[in-house]
Amino acid sequence: MNTIYCYANHQIKPLENAGVPVSDLLVQRGYGIFDFLRVAHGKPLFIDDHLDRFFNSASIMHLPIKESREEIKKIVATLIEKNKFEYSGIRLLMAGGDAPDGYTISQPHLIIIEQALAPPILQFSEKGIHLASYPYQRQLSEVKTTDYLMAIWLQPWMKTKGAHDILYYQEVSVSECPRSNIFMVSPQNKLVTPENHMLKGITRKNILQIAVNLGLEFECRNIPLEELKLAKEVFISSSTKRILPVSQIDDKVFELSNSKSISYIIFNQLCLLETGQC
Amino acid sequence: MNTIYCYANHQIKPLENAGVPVSDLLVQRGYGIFDFLRVAHGKPLFIDDHLDRFFNSASIMHLPIKESREEIKKIVATLIEKNKFEYSGIRLLMAGGDAPDGYTISQPHLIIIEQALAPPILQFSEKGIHLASYPYQRQLSEVKTTDYLMAIWLQPWMKTKGAHDILYYQEVSVSECPRSNIFMVSPQNKLVTPENHMLKGITRKNILQIAVNLGLEFECRNIPLEELKLAKEVFISSSTKRILPVSQIDDKVFELSNSKSISYIIFNQLCLLETGQC
Repeated sequence: MNTIYCYANHQIKPLENAGVPVSDLLVQRGYGIFDFLRVAHGKPLFIDDHLDRFFNSASIMHLPIKESREEIKKIVATLIEKNKFEYSGIRLLMAGGDAPDGYTISQPHLIIIEQALAPPILQFSEKGIHLASYPYQRQLSEVKTTDYLMAIWLQPWMKTKGAHDILYYQEVSVSECPRSNIFMVSPQNKLVTPENHMLKGITRKNILQIAVNLGLEFECRNIPLEELKLAKEVFISSSTKRILPVSQIDDKVFELSNSKSISYIIFNQLCLLETGQC
Repeated sequence: MNTIYCYANHQIKPLENAGVPVSDLLVQRGYGIFDFLRVAHGKPLFIDDHLDRFFNSASIMHLPIKESREEIKKIVATLIEKNKFEYSGIRLLMAGGDAPDGYTISQPHLIIIEQALAPPILQFSEKGIHLASYPYQRQLSEVKTTDYLMAIWLQPWMKTKGAHDILYYQEVSVSECPRSNIFMVSPQNKLVTPENHMLKGITRKNILQIAVNLGLEFECRNIPLEELKLAKEVFISSSTKRILPVSQIDDKVFELSNSKSISYIIFNQLCLLETGQC
């Protein structure tokens, strides 16, 4: 196997030599943030948007990043060149750092990992995925923290429901899936997505821009779970998945989207937008 | 400096060689549990209670522990013997393990760390501590997970309040401090502590046993924040702190406990109980 390189302890090094010290706040107290972006044809996609969000997450979490934006971009470029993956994902991880008292932020540090990914899906999925709804609100939800305690804890439950992913909701609105945003097309053909209490994805942002470009009617607002189940189309979005149509939420089955659907149109526009980045 | 030994990757090794792989679910997804116990005169205190809780946390979190109870006790004894700390704490940490897909529990693994601690306080604190209340409910609160995201995030805010620790509460009741349980002595001299939505401490359990032994009236039930502020005495409890009286919650100042206070009596009983373990 080829050596995979990562960035840790302020240097590029083989991945197998990169461990987080057991005294780190990330290990002992789950205190960390990250971001994840895809690489296609050697180009990191939407890296400025991801860095904007990463620096914002760090700022909210009191985690100063020593490396500048330009330094991080150079490290990412070096990893891409050294690792030579055909398709990959880059994980920027900011660990809380070594805390002598096991509790106080002192020396946060940056880790950057590149990992191979399957080639991106070029065909709009015709099968769709099944979501199981679960009442939960992520803590510090506007920040991309490493807290996926509930998402991973719920995996066995999710499987008993025959579902592929989880949809978090509260009384007033659905919010997000653990690693994706959620959209619906209303019976009035309006594109709607929640606005609060969730992480704002880069793909979500791109979709809203596409809606502007195409002149599609859209709205960012609360969507009660019951209303979502009355939608014409439902789909989730993320950097790795782009768009996946939802075929079922709990017991409610949706008709499969077709080539005239808004989901399908947006999927193709997203592919074009990515190509434009390469 | 002497080498400090820990247990990781199924072997005793120097602490500086023990890192958690960056691919571990604990690092990438904050998925882990732990427990922490004190060591006095070479004896791990209340280790059976801590192991009961640790195995229970692991079971709830779908984290199978390969090592048996007896094996863990032997490892702990070996670390104590090799490290020769005068006073120390033992951290049992169960990491989610390497997940090829970065998301699914596959090979959880046990890490055991011993760290030096200051000698235990033998005198009941006469100063007390100041708590700042914050509306928050820990997720999976009956499990000792590594999730201290909110506790650490709130540190700068807590300092602006001039407080020493945070008290979580919800509408119906206060629940806990991030690393301690909370007790009050009601105006009717009844010892009261919350019963739900918090982690049940080993020291909390010992205190309730002391209440039984001494024939003190006690009750485990919801305590609304407003009611807590009307208490005669308030104190927090934990394995490292035993008991610390609370001198202030938000703007409410409490009279300092004295040698006739219930807090003082329980503190001394806790010290005796510990001595009995050695």
